[in-house]
Amino acid sequence: MNATETYQNLTRKLREISVLGSCAAVLGWDEQTYMPPKGGTFRGEQVSLLAQMCHEQFTAPEIGEALSTLEGSDLLSDPDSIPAANIRELRRSYNRATKIPSRLVAELARVTTLAQGEWRNAREKNDFSLFQPWLEQVLNLKREEAESVGYTEHRYDALLDEYEPGMTAARLKQMFAELAQNLVPIIQAIQNSKCKPQGEILHRPYPIELQKTFAEQAARQIGFDFEAGRLDVTAHPFCTGIGPGDCRITTRYNANFFNESFFGVLHEAGHGLYEQGLLAEQFGLPCGSACSLGIHESQSRFWENQVGRSHRYWQMLFPKAQAHFSPVLADVRLDDFYFAINEVKPSFIRVEADEATYNLHIILRFELELALLSGDLAVKDLPQVWRDRFTQLFGITPPDDKLGCLQDIHWSMGGIGYFPTYTLGNLYSAQLMNAAQQQIVNLNELILQGDFVPLREWLRENIHIHGKRYTADGLIEKAVGEPPQSRAFIDYLRSKYQPLYQF
Amino acid sequence: MNATETYQNLTRKLREISVLGSCAAVLGWDEQTYMPPKGGTFRGEQVSLLAQMCHEQFTAPEIGEALSTLEGSDLLSDPDSIPAANIRELRRSYNRATKIPSRLVAELARVTTLAQGEWRNAREKNDFSLFQPWLEQVLNLKREEAESVGYTEHRYDALLDEYEPGMTAARLKQMFAELAQNLVPIIQAIQNSKCKPQGEILHRPYPIELQKTFAEQAARQIGFDFEAGRLDVTAHPFCTGIGPGDCRITTRYNANFFNESFFGVLHEAGHGLYEQGLLAEQFGLPCGSACSLGIHESQSRFWENQVGRSHRYWQMLFPKAQAHFSPVLADVRLDDFYFAINEVKPSFIRVEADEATYNLHIILRFELELALLSGDLAVKDLPQVWRDRFTQLFGITPPDDKLGCLQDIHWSMGGIGYFPTYTLGNLYSAQLMNAAQQQIVNLNELILQGDFVPLREWLRENIHIHGKRYTADGLIEKAVGEPPQSRAFIDYLRSKYQPLYQF
Repeated sequence: MNATETYQNLTRKLREISVLGSCAAVLGWDEQTYMPPKGGTFRGEQVSLLAQMCHEQFTAPEIGEALSTLEGSDLLSDPDSIPAANIRELRRSYNRATKIPSRLVAELARVTTLAQGEWRNAREKNDFSLFQPWLEQVLNLKREEAESVGYTEHRYDALLDEYEPGMTAARLKQMFAELAQNLVPIIQAIQNSKCKPQGEILHRPYPIELQKTFAEQAARQIGFDFEAGRLDVTAHPFCTGIGPGDCRITTRYNANFFNESFFGVLHEAGHGLYEQGLLAEQFGLPCGSACSLGIHESQSRFWENQVGRSHRYWQMLFPKAQAHFSPVLADVRLDDFYFAINEVKPSFIRVEADEATYNLHIILRFELELALLSGDLAVKDLPQVWRDRFTQLFGITPPDDKLGCLQDIHWSMGGIGYFPTYTLGNLYSAQLMNAAQQQIVNLNELILQGDFVPLREWLRENIHIHGKRYTADGLIEKAVGEPPQSRAFIDYLRSKYQPLYQF
Repeated sequence: MNATETYQNLTRKLREISVLGSCAAVLGWDEQTYMPPKGGTFRGEQVSLLAQMCHEQFTAPEIGEALSTLEGSDLLSDPDSIPAANIRELRRSYNRATKIPSRLVAELARVTTLAQGEWRNAREKNDFSLFQPWLEQVLNLKREEAESVGYTEHRYDALLDEYEPGMTAARLKQMFAELAQNLVPIIQAIQNSKCKPQGEILHRPYPIELQKTFAEQAARQIGFDFEAGRLDVTAHPFCTGIGPGDCRITTRYNANFFNESFFGVLHEAGHGLYEQGLLAEQFGLPCGSACSLGIHESQSRFWENQVGRSHRYWQMLFPKAQAHFSPVLADVRLDDFYFAINEVKPSFIRVEADEATYNLHIILRFELELALLSGDLAVKDLPQVWRDRFTQLFGITPPDDKLGCLQDIHWSMGGIGYFPTYTLGNLYSAQLMNAAQQQIVNLNELILQGDFVPLREWLRENIHIHGKRYTADGLIEKAVGEPPQSRAFIDYLRSKYQPLYQF
């Protein structure tokens, strides 16, 4: 068998494994949307069988052998070619999947399932001590996972690699330090400002049926293909790319709050556009899969914030909103609406935070999970350290752990290294918008006209179609001409908030 | 390994295969309900991968070896025990699955997929000649399948065995001849009667939202568990039992016809009660699976007709219907409504037929498919023979093949031997109602009170929980004290229609 045949067999097998995995994606979507409650136990059995089969098939020795054969072939002669990138990335995930002992995989699955339950219980009772032993167990297992996978510098890098391949703790430290240094003064200036938006505008009665049609139209306008996707309601909004021609997003409606569903839908539709923009013929292969969580988040944040919270977007959409929700917005001026949707206000809960303070929430979590993993911070001290550092960063102190270190599910699921990708997404999105402004003629004019085709196509050409062909770093640098950094995002925030808060 | 361990291993493996198969059931439901249109191609890939994996795993030599070991063990000493029944039925399906060459399986899949498309096309164009070569191919392959599987008497028996294990062409001929002999005079008497129901009652405007809540209440009242199931809308109504705790039914609404959704939902809920009544701990094994298609249909027909079209059911429900659809039924008397939902009228389309003439449609198809399979009837002659025999049975002649031999999808899918199970279901359901009347104290009174618990429990104890533990024949005989026959059904029709049509 020559290298080309080996490559074809391997990619055929990989596609098959992904088709099997995609069945679990349908089951996962169904579980969150329409599954009857008593179906839950059996659904667990279905999903875990599929996961186990996919893992077994992907870690089979033949996969490793095929990769070794291909690594010695001239398919790698152009390292940026699609086959070379697929082989590189398959090796990365094959090594990761085979280096972690199956005993550890099983133990992680068992402990994190229990830890999630205990976390929920602890949060409900506002009692960190109930969660403490479970977080300790999770951290021990994640340390073991990191040791199995291996790393050069920091143990954290081995975990981060699962979510943002190529990123390191050292680079994050440097990038986030710079970000915090510039962000904190902006937030302070905003807090000291006498200008305040009229927040009540967003808390008027917005009938859910009207919110639904308005959000759908907005998603359709930016290009989410409803012939190849759906929008449903779930308790926790998400986007799931099932496979070519099928990507589904969800939202939740609050009859007295405009932002929740509208910006939620733009956010998920941004994720959805990414999934819909992947190359169908590369389905199941790295070059047909999302580059990283940070890049994925850059796409959602791009449409939610860079576009969706911009003044020119609402110049286009506000008259339509006034007509759609008539008479609720009849007495509201565009500029007041624009100010309201861009209010900055320190608060305790990450998922409710504005564009600016959101990143302080992430920086806090990054610092703490780094210290927890290294052992510099004992789990028992987490609540106090959280409160102290939160106060330093935000100028306010969480009154309890429910509004502090018990608010997020991630750590109980073993998601150490996940949080930073949210802020990376924010940083990337600002860099991408800068580049789009430079490269697309009359972009502002197009947005004013509600024509998003050139912008979407630009993202598709520069981000979506590449999948994992390049690392996140490489992809950003290729698209915007510079590596990831925080300056573009800071400039973006400053230029948006200075006129609003007049500092 | 002793026999008990072998049995445990085998049942564990079988359960796993069924869990995998149940994923395809979710995907199938999703395809009919919520899947976006562009997801169709990929969905085909998912479903065919799962089907192929299930087939491979079920036909693996180890399954056959385990069965051989168990067949020599004392687990079979009580042939009616659950393990013995599971082994017996697994052997039956294992033999069937392994006797058909994989080349033939693939060819059947290929040809029937194409034949369905050609059938649709032929029906649309009302041109049988387009479908003729495809039906010939399907019949050739089904003959080959029958030869591979083997049979004692009639080739047809090998095909029937897939849908109604144990039933034979010879017994069907005898049972259906007796049925036709008694049914045709009843239908003739009805046609000669001067009494006619006021059909327009059912064709008034029934708002879909009201139909939905009314049908849901009716399904809930007879015991369909909506915590373990759902009701959705599809073009072609169906019931799918996904697994323990998850069984879904569908319907379609016609804003100007009461029967379509109401009796459709009762029908599917009857199927659903059967699925919800199977033993969860036997999931994936014959004793946790429906006995036969005929038994399944007996459950749907039981609730749709034996209960749902009875006078006492509407004594209970009609006042509620009047209130629910007010004022649409304000001027209607219970007896006129009852007569309207029990109208008998020969018509060309099977799926629109009433309880009585429905069975003539089945007898026609049974006779013709028997002759097609044996070769006594050439495919090219089918349209004419259909018209002639239809005229004999119904007294009216289909004006074209769309209303004749092109109306049903079954043959294009290779479903030769499927049709008789519909009428078997009707016959079984009448026998079951007779037995229930004898065995449940005050059943009529309970129905008048809308209390269906004892009736549902009786069906659960006598039918549902047994799965395939007994053959359909054995199960009916055990439940009602006599083997399947047509007398109970004929008596039921006569006692219902004589007072209405006064013959």
